[in-house]
Amino acid sequence: MEIEYSKIKVIGFDADDTLWVNETYFRDAEQEFAKYLSHYETPNKIDQELYKMEIKNLPLYGYGIKGFMLSMVEMAIELSNNNVSNHTISKILEIGKNMLNKPVELLDGVEDALIELSKKYRLIVATKGDLLDQERKLEKSGLLKYFHHIEVLSDKKEDNYKRLLQHLDIKPDSFLMIGNSLKSDVLPLINIGAQAIHVPFHTTWAYEQVEYKQTENKHYKTVESLKKVIEVLS
Amino acid sequence: MEIEYSKIKVIGFDADDTLWVNETYFRDAEQEFAKYLSHYETPNKIDQELYKMEIKNLPLYGYGIKGFMLSMVEMAIELSNNNVSNHTISKILEIGKNMLNKPVELLDGVEDALIELSKKYRLIVATKGDLLDQERKLEKSGLLKYFHHIEVLSDKKEDNYKRLLQHLDIKPDSFLMIGNSLKSDVLPLINIGAQAIHVPFHTTWAYEQVEYKQTENKHYKTVESLKKVIEVLS
Repeated sequence: MEIEYSKIKVIGFDADDTLWVNETYFRDAEQEFAKYLSHYETPNKIDQELYKMEIKNLPLYGYGIKGFMLSMVEMAIELSNNNVSNHTISKILEIGKNMLNKPVELLDGVEDALIELSKKYRLIVATKGDLLDQERKLEKSGLLKYFHHIEVLSDKKEDNYKRLLQHLDIKPDSFLMIGNSLKSDVLPLINIGAQAIHVPFHTTWAYEQVEYKQTENKHYKTVESLKKVIEVLS
Repeated sequence: MEIEYSKIKVIGFDADDTLWVNETYFRDAEQEFAKYLSHYETPNKIDQELYKMEIKNLPLYGYGIKGFMLSMVEMAIELSNNNVSNHTISKILEIGKNMLNKPVELLDGVEDALIELSKKYRLIVATKGDLLDQERKLEKSGLLKYFHHIEVLSDKKEDNYKRLLQHLDIKPDSFLMIGNSLKSDVLPLINIGAQAIHVPFHTTWAYEQVEYKQTENKHYKTVESLKKVIEVLS
C-alpha cells in the first residue's frame, strides 16, 4: 500500500543521530570506561553491567549525559568492590565532561535537506535528553534558523507527543516525525494517528531497539538518509 | 508610585521555593556532604569550596540535582587530595538520589492562592532545572490542573523570558511573574516590560542573590506569601 503524505504540514525531527552524531560518542565513552576498569572485568561484562545500571537509574535520572556519568561512577564502585581509585573516578568524570564539550558533527546532507523541506513545511525539533545539553547542541549546530519550535521532552512516549501536538495546535494527521529510533520516533507517532519516516543510524542504543513484531502492520517508510526523505515526500 | 495590575492576563509562577520547598533540601544536602568530609576540612570551608565547584560547572551542567551530585563527587576527590573512600562517594550519590526522591512539600496557602487566581488569570509555570525532575515534582504536587502551560527553562535571563512570551503569544505588559528570586523571577521581567511580584523564601542560594543597587528604581512589590499576592491584585 502506498503511503500518502499530502496532508503533512509540519515535520518534526529527532536530533541525536538524526541531525547529528551522538550514539557513537556514547559507544566511545563506554569503551574508555571499560578500559579504565579492565583489571576488574572483561569489556563485555563491564558493558552489560553499565547498561543495567543505566536502565535502573533511568526513572530517576532520565536521558542524557549527566545521568550517564552518575551511572558510570556508581558502576565503577560496584564493579571494583569499593576499590576503584579516586584517579579513575576523576577520569570517568572527564569522559562525561568531554562528551558535553564535543563539537556537533552534522550527519551527511542534513542542512541541504532542511533548506529544501523548510520551503514547503513548518519544521520543529522534538528531542529528549538534558535540556541545557540539547539547547547547546542546537546552538552549536547552526541549524536553529530552520526550526519554528524546539521541544526537549523528558520522554518520547505517545502521551508526550500528544501533549506536544496539542500545545502547538497541530493535528496528528498533518504531522510527520523523522528519526532514527523506531521506539521513540516512529511507533508512538503511528499509534496516535500521525506519520513517521525511519532514518536509521548505524548504531542504536540497546534500550531503543524494538522487536520485529512490534513493527508489523505499522505504516511507515524506512529510508537511508534525510536526502531520501525529500524524494519520498515529493 | 502605585503599581497598576489592570492589564495583567497571564501569571507565571516560579516553582522551587515559590510553590514548594527546595532550597532547604540543598542546604541539608550540603550539611550532610560536609559531615562526610569533616576529617578533611571545616564545614565552612567545604561549603565555600562546593559552591565554587558548582559555579565552575554551571555552564556545563546547568541547574538541578544531577549537576549538584557530580560537583559533590568532584569536590570530595579534590578536598581529600584523592583520598576519599568509595564508601563516602557512594554516600554522596545517595544524598542526591534521596533529593530526587523527596516528596513535594507545598508552601503554605499555595493551592488556595492558585484556586483563587485561576478564576481570573491564565496561570503558567516557568521554572529552571532538570527537565525530568521538575516534571516529576509538578506531577507529585497535584497542582498541574491549575496551569495552562509548563515551561522548564535552561536559564531565566531576559532572552529566555522573551522567547517564552513570544512562543505563548503573550504581550509583556499583560504578564506578571511571581517568584522568590530577584535575580531570576523579578529583575529580568521588569527589564523586558513585564511585571513581577517578589515572594521571598527564607533561604536563598548565594548564586541567586543580588546586590541592593541592582533593585533600585525597579518597579515591583515584595509580599510575604502567595496569599498576599491575591490582596495586591484585587
